[in-house]
Amino acid sequence: MDENRPLQRTTRTALHRRPARGSYDRALAYAIIDEALICSAGFVVDGQPYVLPMAHARVGDEIMLHGAAASRLLTSAASSAVCLTFTLLDGLVLARSAMHLSMNFRSVVVLAEAREVVERAAKLLALHALIEHVMRGRAREVRPPNDKELAATKVLAVPVEEASIKVRSGGPIDDDADLDWPCWAGEVPLGLVASAPRPAPELDPLRALPEGIVHGRLRVTAG
Amino acid sequence: MDENRPLQRTTRTALHRRPARGSYDRALAYAIIDEALICSAGFVVDGQPYVLPMAHARVGDEIMLHGAAASRLLTSAASSAVCLTFTLLDGLVLARSAMHLSMNFRSVVVLAEAREVVERAAKLLALHALIEHVMRGRAREVRPPNDKELAATKVLAVPVEEASIKVRSGGPIDDDADLDWPCWAGEVPLGLVASAPRPAPELDPLRALPEGIVHGRLRVTAG
Repeated sequence: MDENRPLQRTTRTALHRRPARGSYDRALAYAIIDEALICSAGFVVDGQPYVLPMAHARVGDEIMLHGAAASRLLTSAASSAVCLTFTLLDGLVLARSAMHLSMNFRSVVVLAEAREVVERAAKLLALHALIEHVMRGRAREVRPPNDKELAATKVLAVPVEEASIKVRSGGPIDDDADLDWPCWAGEVPLGLVASAPRPAPELDPLRALPEGIVHGRLRVTAG
Repeated sequence: MDENRPLQRTTRTALHRRPARGSYDRALAYAIIDEALICSAGFVVDGQPYVLPMAHARVGDEIMLHGAAASRLLTSAASSAVCLTFTLLDGLVLARSAMHLSMNFRSVVVLAEAREVVERAAKLLALHALIEHVMRGRAREVRPPNDKELAATKVLAVPVEEASIKVRSGGPIDDDADLDWPCWAGEVPLGLVASAPRPAPELDPLRALPEGIVHGRLRVTAG
């Protein structure tokens, strides 16, 4: 893994609309991918695109996806062209004019061919990463996958090479002629926030919360 | 518009994995679509799927998308097969076993052919809806689109007919043998939350916040 190696800017990943908001910086792409809890995975079957929300995790320069071994979509995605898109919504941008209304976001689009991960150790490593992605430290707390579960699970790996980043941040960009328009203008920051954890009904009430909730990346509010 | 008319369950939208979590209820689909701030739009160009985060708004039984008139992707999407996916992430579900780790979510997948909206009044209606979707009441506060902006904007309409819903809610579903596994288990609710609005630097400091922020659907925390 070399985070200094830029992403591949091809005719397919070149940004034509607002190229100033684009980037091919691998470290930035990885920061966005690692922060996103889910991705939108695009596949094509008989010419029809399908986009599904999926859990993901990055292992080095590859993204791991998993699903039921019997999944038709995962089966058709293996060795096929896929698109993985990661989007963090950071805010609403309220401009004085209708057409300058915008949103702040960070997104990464990865174009690649997916390959199925079949080797047992690599599959276990991918599943470990998928758990740690949701909550760091959780993999060592839970009952690990058994052989039956492993056999029922398909893992796909998607290399992050041909990809692009798009980022919008900051306040509204209004036309000079609109600066005196009589309405509020500015940014409303948005973020994904956790509220009070709800223990499972059968749980021993003395059981401590996972480290990942107490000291994790999630912002937890009383609620 | 008839919210009692179910969505079309076809071979392409039939849910094979965990069908109990699926639904074809149009009113539920519209509630999810209306709550989601963005969608993931999937297109196919030369066999390659592309998934892009896009703003959207529902007008009756159609979803409106917009972008630059010069956009290659929007141009190729008009009169083509697209997939629009709407995902609300509602929580992390921490089970006692690795493979029962899950997330709570509500998602809608719409398969359709997009059509370009060219008629001026219909285009203005779509743009009005796109603004109101982001913040109710905002369209009457801002400077409306002018002819030049209208000409530079392409609008696509995507009918909501062949579609499916998937919802997961509630706590973890562990195997009986794992119920005594020594770790915390439960649900961590997640939601998109707004923090303190940041006025544009040039803004008159006496200008009141938009009604949509003060009384809108966004949960706003001090931040």
